[in-house]
Amino acid sequence: MRTHYCGHLNKSLAGQTVELCGWVNRRRDLGGLIFIDMRDREGIVQVVVDPDMADAYEVANQLRNEFCIKLTGVVNARPESQVNQDMATGEVEILAKGLEIINRSDVLPLDFNQKNSEEQRLKYRYLDLRRPEMSDRIKLRAKASSFVRRFLDENGFLDIETPVLTKATPEGARDYLVPSRVHKGSFYALPQSPQLFKQLLMMSGFDRYYQIVKCFRDEDLRADRQPEFTQIDIETSFMSAEQVREKTEAMIRQMWQELLNVDLGEFPIMSFEEAARRFGSDKPDLRNPLELVDVADILKDVDFKVFSGPANDEKGRVAVIRVPGGAALSRKQIDEYTNFVGIYGAKGLAWMKVNDRAAGFEGVQSPVAKFLNEEVVAQLLERTQAETGDIILFGADSKRVVTEAMGALRLKLGTDLELTDKAAWKPLWVIDFPMFEEDDEGNLHAMHHPFTSPLGLTAEELIANPASANSNAYDMVINGYEVGGGSVRIHNAEMQSAVFSILGIEADEQKAKFGFLLEALKFGTPPHAGLAFGLDRLVMLLCGTDNIRDVIAFPKTTAAACLLTNAPSLANPASLEELAIAVTAAAKAAEETQAKDAE
Amino acid sequence: MRTHYCGHLNKSLAGQTVELCGWVNRRRDLGGLIFIDMRDREGIVQVVVDPDMADAYEVANQLRNEFCIKLTGVVNARPESQVNQDMATGEVEILAKGLEIINRSDVLPLDFNQKNSEEQRLKYRYLDLRRPEMSDRIKLRAKASSFVRRFLDENGFLDIETPVLTKATPEGARDYLVPSRVHKGSFYALPQSPQLFKQLLMMSGFDRYYQIVKCFRDEDLRADRQPEFTQIDIETSFMSAEQVREKTEAMIRQMWQELLNVDLGEFPIMSFEEAARRFGSDKPDLRNPLELVDVADILKDVDFKVFSGPANDEKGRVAVIRVPGGAALSRKQIDEYTNFVGIYGAKGLAWMKVNDRAAGFEGVQSPVAKFLNEEVVAQLLERTQAETGDIILFGADSKRVVTEAMGALRLKLGTDLELTDKAAWKPLWVIDFPMFEEDDEGNLHAMHHPFTSPLGLTAEELIANPASANSNAYDMVINGYEVGGGSVRIHNAEMQSAVFSILGIEADEQKAKFGFLLEALKFGTPPHAGLAFGLDRLVMLLCGTDNIRDVIAFPKTTAAACLLTNAPSLANPASLEELAIAVTAAAKAAEETQAKDAE
Repeated sequence: MRTHYCGHLNKSLAGQTVELCGWVNRRRDLGGLIFIDMRDREGIVQVVVDPDMADAYEVANQLRNEFCIKLTGVVNARPESQVNQDMATGEVEILAKGLEIINRSDVLPLDFNQKNSEEQRLKYRYLDLRRPEMSDRIKLRAKASSFVRRFLDENGFLDIETPVLTKATPEGARDYLVPSRVHKGSFYALPQSPQLFKQLLMMSGFDRYYQIVKCFRDEDLRADRQPEFTQIDIETSFMSAEQVREKTEAMIRQMWQELLNVDLGEFPIMSFEEAARRFGSDKPDLRNPLELVDVADILKDVDFKVFSGPANDEKGRVAVIRVPGGAALSRKQIDEYTNFVGIYGAKGLAWMKVNDRAAGFEGVQSPVAKFLNEEVVAQLLERTQAETGDIILFGADSKRVVTEAMGALRLKLGTDLELTDKAAWKPLWVIDFPMFEEDDEGNLHAMHHPFTSPLGLTAEELIANPASANSNAYDMVINGYEVGGGSVRIHNAEMQSAVFSILGIEADEQKAKFGFLLEALKFGTPPHAGLAFGLDRLVMLLCGTDNIRDVIAFPKTTAAACLLTNAPSLANPASLEELAIAVTAAAKAAEETQAKDAE
Repeated sequence: MRTHYCGHLNKSLAGQTVELCGWVNRRRDLGGLIFIDMRDREGIVQVVVDPDMADAYEVANQLRNEFCIKLTGVVNARPESQVNQDMATGEVEILAKGLEIINRSDVLPLDFNQKNSEEQRLKYRYLDLRRPEMSDRIKLRAKASSFVRRFLDENGFLDIETPVLTKATPEGARDYLVPSRVHKGSFYALPQSPQLFKQLLMMSGFDRYYQIVKCFRDEDLRADRQPEFTQIDIETSFMSAEQVREKTEAMIRQMWQELLNVDLGEFPIMSFEEAARRFGSDKPDLRNPLELVDVADILKDVDFKVFSGPANDEKGRVAVIRVPGGAALSRKQIDEYTNFVGIYGAKGLAWMKVNDRAAGFEGVQSPVAKFLNEEVVAQLLERTQAETGDIILFGADSKRVVTEAMGALRLKLGTDLELTDKAAWKPLWVIDFPMFEEDDEGNLHAMHHPFTSPLGLTAEELIANPASANSNAYDMVINGYEVGGGSVRIHNAEMQSAVFSILGIEADEQKAKFGFLLEALKFGTPPHAGLAFGLDRLVMLLCGTDNIRDVIAFPKTTAAACLLTNAPSLANPASLEELAIAVTAAAKAAEETQAKDAE
């Protein structure tokens, strides 16, 4: 029905008759003429309707915002002086010859000229997506997917689909369950990732696999999480960790180049230990110049238990952040930061302002100065390279608390004080993760997942000392977001069984849950390694937004609801009967409350 | 770890040292040499290990089938006389220099040299997929997906993801339900198709959408159905039915050209009425030359109620199939066909053999000859163009029974008598479907889905006479398979509401279930149309298999189970408690039976 998209019109088409289909973005009457900003997915163009074109003019007179229209008109190059620099199509306007209303529109429940509540925007998502800002994001997402597929196709990766109705997996998060009608009392689980299937595909010999695939986690949601999310899932055989990183780094670098015209450069590689030590995070935002500096050795003999305690405890940590210009922070601001680190378990936030660097001990101001001495202060100033006007903030507690609290504080200071370079791109790889994490009860948990290979250890060595083992895993981090993670996988049954045992999964349970995997590992499994990127997060970064819902066409709220369709909703009792399940009493009570709320 | 794939080696590489990774497909000792057929995903190459290469020879001696190995060797062009024509790499062999066992293999539970039961193949799917026949299918599927995406990307379609956790839709089949933990007592449904979301995307102005997407139906399964299946989902705005057909036909034609080097030609277009009349099917297999021929007018006055009854009933039908050479059918064969049409409700299968065409009435043989006369027989022979040696088979009953029974018989005869040209490709479009079907209680059901636009009718006209309305829907059929179907959609609220009413969905229910759609239709909805292809079926056709499980990496059985992972399985009671659901008593009994069976 159209010859061109509105957004593609330019002066090379001057004099041509074009047919356009789209929406009235705005209508104005000016000096007897009617001006219509006409919009389609590619952009907006200005249409002029002259009263001389009586039929078109009469139709134009009826137009309201968001009417769907068809226009026939002639492209007119605007004189140089009237070019609209703010519009991509600003060098032309269209002189209307014929105009037709395809569909009328009520007044929209969203006002595009102001900020609408996110609730309204989600309820009328199909209207919110008409806004160029939103549709551009969805278009960029399509471009990103398309780029990834092209890159991986060209590199010999095969797009292979894995099941959505599958078996519960132990990825750590809660599974969504799907009751089976045929096998009453049994349930499928929606996949948290296709991890085991992609490993099985390597055992089949497919060599290079990828899939852009929906994954599911029934977790309490945060701003950058959704119950269903999309993964760029990759697995390879006969490739080392280095080779997987090289290939996938090339993909991301080329993606940024193609979609943003940005050169990310070569990604630095950092160990987990270094990332935690310098940045208090396993996904450091390197746009932020602040660093954590360990000072336990300097403070271990001071007469202040808050410092000397952790400094002398092998499970403790004492680290400082030097904030350039931070001496200007008010007492109130410092109190706020003290409260902030409290969220992470820190019991306080000692500080030392450097009012005059040259004056040494005499030039610093600190509530804890009395516990320090000249030599200690000199060493602190020296190690932190502090200058006049800076502040030094202290964290002293268990390793975990100091790392987390100071890591979080580092990010907050970077933002608050505008030290973080928002325009920069800072990618890196984090590697050499611990194989296991210990919980409060002393149980070990897989830091990545139980199929991750330890780094340079035999099964015997791993069993002998699991807590100190590193895994052959790697995360890609960009601007403080973990955008992808992966590992070399275990490819023999003995090692796999050892890891299960360390995780407290006994032989019986191993057989029941992972028998097929342990068996599969016996038939000439190739060495294999892979990685999964979070597509939603990558697109968030590409779009420059920090709200994951902005890059998903039909997202759910943080309460996992779809405000547009009202999902989830009550099920037909007959359906539940067929599925041989019943809603429990507690849930029924909740139901009734819901129903009451709805009235 | 490799320089080449086994399957890519050829004599242009003669003299080069190559490194290969793969599996022992076969090992033979012959005249002191060891020959290894080495396999990777691209094919098989023959490796020769000479006892002179002592280290490699010693390793080769340990090899068994399916060991995973790494080989360093030199490519040797075979002399012309020793070229193996049966192997793609038959013009070379590799002289082993170094050989390494990467991973050993137990004896496989599948024997690749014989046919294994489908149960065993599904249980050890990862091994079955090592067979080149199977891996080639999965590779062809990847190529097909990749082609489709490339084609649609190039044609301005945007790949946009729609939710998997969504609201129950009325597509006709049973939904899979997913209990919500946050909204206890409520359920998500897995989508039977993204129908409403893609329509909403058109309302957002995305203009051209596609997605290759998993869809779900909890139905009892047949050989060509799976609980989860993959759809190539397409929607466009401002395009007519003809334009959608043209675009998607071009895609399929180019797909066959690129993947099979087959020219499908232009697709004929046939009305639903003609397809039912001539072929007894809405998805006629045009490779089969047999046709149904209506003869009610010829038989309406015969003194045989079985014929004259339906011939004079406007809801009846009398049709024949002339089978060339069919006079040779034995009485036993005819009895079998009589039983066969009985499945479809036919009460018998009258026949007439043409022993001597020139002799007219005297030349035919039939148990019902006594009810016919010279003129009737002459007219039958004339209309069917029967020749000596043919048989004419009669169907006389209600329209539905005759159409279904004779349509099915046509297919069976085509196969049994080898009349169907298995090597041919016969695509077509079927259009002009009835808008509604009537069930036995006289209720109307949407033949496509309730969002399909009627053909050339206003809402008032549709309401006045719904049973006779046609829809603006179209199906693509290839070789008797419906590979795709779509329609022009309803794009105004009044028409949509009229269709819901005709389907017996009252105003209240319309509001509760489809309120968001009816509301969305008020805001300048563009005219839109689309189509969805069944990717699994397309790939089945491309691969020349009629088992859908052959083209899915990890399929489910007809009982909707995964024999590899044993999904579905019992859920953790704590999980069910969190979800506020309970398995009912009946299901628990079934559970116990299951558990007993397992012992």
